[in-house]
Amino acid sequence: MIIIGELLNSTREKIRKALAEKDAAFLQDLAIKQQDAGVSYIDVNAGAFAERELDVLEWLIKVVREVTDLPLSIDSPKPEALALGCRLAGDDVILNSITAEQNNFRSIVPIIREFNTKVIALPMDHTGLSEDEGKIFSIANSLIESLGKEGVSPDRIFIDPLIRPIATNTVYGPLALNLIRRFASSFPETRRICGLSNVSFGLPKRKTVNQTFLIMAMASGLDAAIMDPLDEALMSQVKAAQALLDLDPYCMNYINAMR
Amino acid sequence: MIIIGELLNSTREKIRKALAEKDAAFLQDLAIKQQDAGVSYIDVNAGAFAERELDVLEWLIKVVREVTDLPLSIDSPKPEALALGCRLAGDDVILNSITAEQNNFRSIVPIIREFNTKVIALPMDHTGLSEDEGKIFSIANSLIESLGKEGVSPDRIFIDPLIRPIATNTVYGPLALNLIRRFASSFPETRRICGLSNVSFGLPKRKTVNQTFLIMAMASGLDAAIMDPLDEALMSQVKAAQALLDLDPYCMNYINAMR
Repeated sequence: MIIIGELLNSTREKIRKALAEKDAAFLQDLAIKQQDAGVSYIDVNAGAFAERELDVLEWLIKVVREVTDLPLSIDSPKPEALALGCRLAGDDVILNSITAEQNNFRSIVPIIREFNTKVIALPMDHTGLSEDEGKIFSIANSLIESLGKEGVSPDRIFIDPLIRPIATNTVYGPLALNLIRRFASSFPETRRICGLSNVSFGLPKRKTVNQTFLIMAMASGLDAAIMDPLDEALMSQVKAAQALLDLDPYCMNYINAMR
Repeated sequence: MIIIGELLNSTREKIRKALAEKDAAFLQDLAIKQQDAGVSYIDVNAGAFAERELDVLEWLIKVVREVTDLPLSIDSPKPEALALGCRLAGDDVILNSITAEQNNFRSIVPIIREFNTKVIALPMDHTGLSEDEGKIFSIANSLIESLGKEGVSPDRIFIDPLIRPIATNTVYGPLALNLIRRFASSFPETRRICGLSNVSFGLPKRKTVNQTFLIMAMASGLDAAIMDPLDEALMSQVKAAQALLDLDPYCMNYINAMR
């Protein structure tokens, strides 16, 4: 299981404030805490700063790099922010994200190639977000094929089922789980990823819904997540899930983590 | 999701003591608490009393019946205890359990037929507990067929994947989940059930493993469990899982339970 720590995201009020006030200590503390919790990547997002995004992102990456060498996930819809992040972040970057919409695809592929990055692939095109499992699957399929033609091998692709809030429609739960299962069986060399925060939007006790969804998704073939690694109950369940999926020989990671 | 409350089981030290001392109030309190927690059935087991089992079981059922009309799951390897339980328990009994071993099968089928019960079917035969997925599946298949020939329709059968402690071998996790998936797709009219306590045996923080396994099993097609309904975190996750599986329109049960 690859865990991407989601906390350094400017859409979160505390982070936006810390970035605006250049409170490096607060942000570095969160970077270190996420590292200590065992994440493989730290997501960095300065998108809330609109036209100042690039400056803020540059400062954020510099500040994070003072305390950890963990690889980063560079999180922006703007190709120029992604390219800047790659120049500053060092090796093994994940770009968050690319879509099948042609302008987006064409502007992000050169960055993947130049910096030899991994990438989170969102199966949506110029028609936007579909609710049809077959259509989403078919966009995912052609997105992976298109990336392959550009030299991006499946093992560098994290494909995302685009989970939406079940509070708006409970069909979104099975939709996401079915897609993860189909991605796992049809594209076994890719990773299957999702962001956790969306699924529980609008419901009480969101952490319970997030935890439950993550475990169900892991049982369906998810092997990466953008999530809060400081949620101890969530992390314990991820470790239990890995043992239950026979991904933790002798349950040693689980046992060590619990003691 | 059908929840069978597991707490009135004489293999638990406190229950054995309460049964030995005829502490009706303690046992009735547990029956009511399980009912209040939302179980569909209450399991009753007096098996720890060996040759006194029938007397103790009779007293236990009488005591439970003084405080609740919830249907019971009668839990014993002894046909005479199951038959006695059926005579005392009223309608909609689940027999816990029957196997494909011929002596066991032949002695329990008449009880299912006489009292028109449901039954938990354990896919094991005279060779005991198998570790081979194909063999367990094939025993399950012939057990369901044999029950069918005796007039027991699939909707009265709860088939159990026989989960064993992952601390002894982590392959038991995927083995159980794969079996649940295969049972769900091959025998859609049956229920898929499991007992939760076994899977975590020998591990620290057993509740975390139990919770995680139950959620993964629900994502794989489990729709009944023998479990501790007083574990609030477990029950919250079951409700979240039902919403995420589109079994709770508008998330109303989840929302009401959380508020």
